[in-house]
Amino acid sequence: MIAAGARLWQQGWCPATSSNFSQRLGPDSCAVTVSGRDKGNLQPEDIMQVDLAGQALDGKKPSAETLLHTQLYRHDPEIGAVLHTHSMNATLVSTVAPSIVELSGLELLKAFAGNSSHQVTLRIPVFNNTQDIAALANDVETWMQQHGTGHAYLIRGHGLYTWGRDLPETLRHLEALEFLLEYYWHARPDTTEVVI
Amino acid sequence: MIAAGARLWQQGWCPATSSNFSQRLGPDSCAVTVSGRDKGNLQPEDIMQVDLAGQALDGKKPSAETLLHTQLYRHDPEIGAVLHTHSMNATLVSTVAPSIVELSGLELLKAFAGNSSHQVTLRIPVFNNTQDIAALANDVETWMQQHGTGHAYLIRGHGLYTWGRDLPETLRHLEALEFLLEYYWHARPDTTEVVI
Amino acid sequence: MIAAGARLWQQGWCPATSSNFSQRLGPDSCAVTVSGRDKGNLQPEDIMQVDLAGQALDGKKPSAETLLHTQLYRHDPEIGAVLHTHSMNATLVSTVAPSIVELSGLELLKAFAGNSSHQVTLRIPVFNNTQDIAALANDVETWMQQHGTGHAYLIRGHGLYTWGRDLPETLRHLEALEFLLEYYWHARPDTTEVVI
Amino acid sequence: MIAAGARLWQQGWCPATSSNFSQRLGPDSCAVTVSGRDKGNLQPEDIMQVDLAGQALDGKKPSAETLLHTQLYRHDPEIGAVLHTHSMNATLVSTVAPSIVELSGLELLKAFAGNSSHQVTLRIPVFNNTQDIAALANDVETWMQQHGTGHAYLIRGHGLYTWGRDLPETLRHLEALEFLLEYYWHARPDTTEVVI
Repeated sequence: MIAAGARLWQQGWCPATSSNFSQRLGPDSCAVTVSGRDKGNLQPEDIMQVDLAGQALDGKKPSAETLLHTQLYRHDPEIGAVLHTHSMNATLVSTVAPSIVELSGLELLKAFAGNSSHQVTLRIPVFNNTQDIAALANDVETWMQQHGTGHAYLIRGHGLYTWGRDLPETLRHLEALEFLLEYYWHARPDTTEVVI
Repeated sequence: MIAAGARLWQQGWCPATSSNFSQRLGPDSCAVTVSGRDKGNLQPEDIMQVDLAGQALDGKKPSAETLLHTQLYRHDPEIGAVLHTHSMNATLVSTVAPSIVELSGLELLKAFAGNSSHQVTLRIPVFNNTQDIAALANDVETWMQQHGTGHAYLIRGHGLYTWGRDLPETLRHLEALEFLLEYYWHARPDTTEVVI
Repeated sequence: MIAAGARLWQQGWCPATSSNFSQRLGPDSCAVTVSGRDKGNLQPEDIMQVDLAGQALDGKKPSAETLLHTQLYRHDPEIGAVLHTHSMNATLVSTVAPSIVELSGLELLKAFAGNSSHQVTLRIPVFNNTQDIAALANDVETWMQQHGTGHAYLIRGHGLYTWGRDLPETLRHLEALEFLLEYYWHARPDTTEVVI
Repeated sequence: MIAAGARLWQQGWCPATSSNFSQRLGPDSCAVTVSGRDKGNLQPEDIMQVDLAGQALDGKKPSAETLLHTQLYRHDPEIGAVLHTHSMNATLVSTVAPSIVELSGLELLKAFAGNSSHQVTLRIPVFNNTQDIAALANDVETWMQQHGTGHAYLIRGHGLYTWGRDLPETLRHLEALEFLLEYYWHARPDTTEVVI
């Protein structure tokens, strides 16, 4: 997670101590970054352990957004890592997009686990931002119960959540999403859909 | 300050030996970068000591803009560091913005000391550029007397000033401002306000 | 190829384990990157040997896109290296461009082997994307039989292929193409042609 | 010059082995980069010596563009270094600009030797590109005889030349020009002039 943080910070996706990362430790717990640390220069003590109700297991104070990580680990036992970033492209798209961002026909859609063709549509729901993280975690859970887990969601004016079986897969999903959201932002005025 | 300079230069925020940085040394003095040095490769001798009237304490020649740093240290004894940068986004926004840039509803507004929600409005005044730095420092002081200290100001066609209790907090404010000004520049034609 | 991968990944041209690179080993074989590896951190075991029908010579599993590399080595015995990347500019241009992207009058056109003036036109065909790589390789071969080998082609919504006598020449072609495609994307609304 | 090359290449201003750099060695000679070398990885043997007529002094083959460097050293004995780069912003501006790019009212104009205020106008002539470098060098000389030496010129669809008393001053001029040309490109649709 420390190396991942440095890599993501250098890309400009974690400005001003924003963003948080987690990895599953077992069926009932995960490691998550402590709130407010510089993600480009994480130290071992900047990572804490919580149970899947978001309670600290090591006496450190968890960030409020920890509940968005634990919702994912509770929702799907196959999820092994979660990355939340605050990039410019995610923020720009999140503030102009409708309630679901749809991306189709791009080769990089194959970067998502389970896709073997570009002829798919990735649907990324956009939730309104709130400081009531428990309520937002419930909204995410309700949406996933109805529409499936998917690969990512946006929070309007805030950032991106994505996940995968392990940290390398989640990093691959994140790099693909950043690419696809940058594409969406730039192509938006010109192209409404890619030829599939 | 040397490490901060290298970090900021790599982001492209200090082109062509522009920008200056300072840190409070005590109630009556601060350390400030000497004018005209390459901010990506600062040496210890590129930093000098001045009193809060901007007079050198070590025989070196202070930059004219030193008075904009000392105005802040005199105005608020809690201010421990000041960063002035010349980024593209700050310059672009400063030349198209009205007299106050307002930003609301973005999660990254929580990066500023004292903010616990995105449901706030950050107001950044824009002063016209001048080579009469003493007059500009007076204008800044007058504005702060009337509207409060705030977190940052822009100088039109010139750059950005921000501050904080210490250097890490000020770096966090600067990264957040660069993000918010980039957002403002790109979102400007499309979105006039973010859904809060 | 490992050093080239790191250089290209740092430019952002190989997101999310995408892209693949190859070098000719002799008249009947080449070395090619194994599918799905992080191109910013290639290891020796991430490179495999195939014959020019795309069959593995060392028991590793070749990527389906290997056939686009071997088509080039079969087509022209002078080709010594092939680079395939997924940059933002290549993707954006590929989705808005007509069936051939034409670039004229820019000094950087001299970066292509054989050009000694900017007063030339580079024609880059754009093929529709498909997962049937054998069929796409045939389309490329047919096009080259009719129009000559050229220096590069785009696959719509997917990325860029370019080649050269050896890896340094191919890297030079790739850097020039990325520059020219970025230019094409940005200049598009303003300038339809450069004064030659 | 080797360190300068690495720095400029990392900024993306020297793609695909383009660009060339020189430094005066005395009243009648200068050191200049050999044509076609990777400017991000210059070696000592990639730099050669020429007299101010552009003739090699060490048996290496000078680039045709060497005459644009020697014109400057002949024109003004105070010029100690020349940098020629091929950045995206210089190329974009060069193809849309009128015959003279004018920039006023920006603080970074103070980066040019002799300017102590932002209330100046920098005039950058734009010459049409040609492969007849001797003729272009004559055009530059004629223009400078009529309008003064100035700080820089553009070649349409090609790139930027700038100079200074020594290499550090010339690097400062180059960083300032890249900033100003990027500003010009982005601000162009919105602002025709900055409030001075």
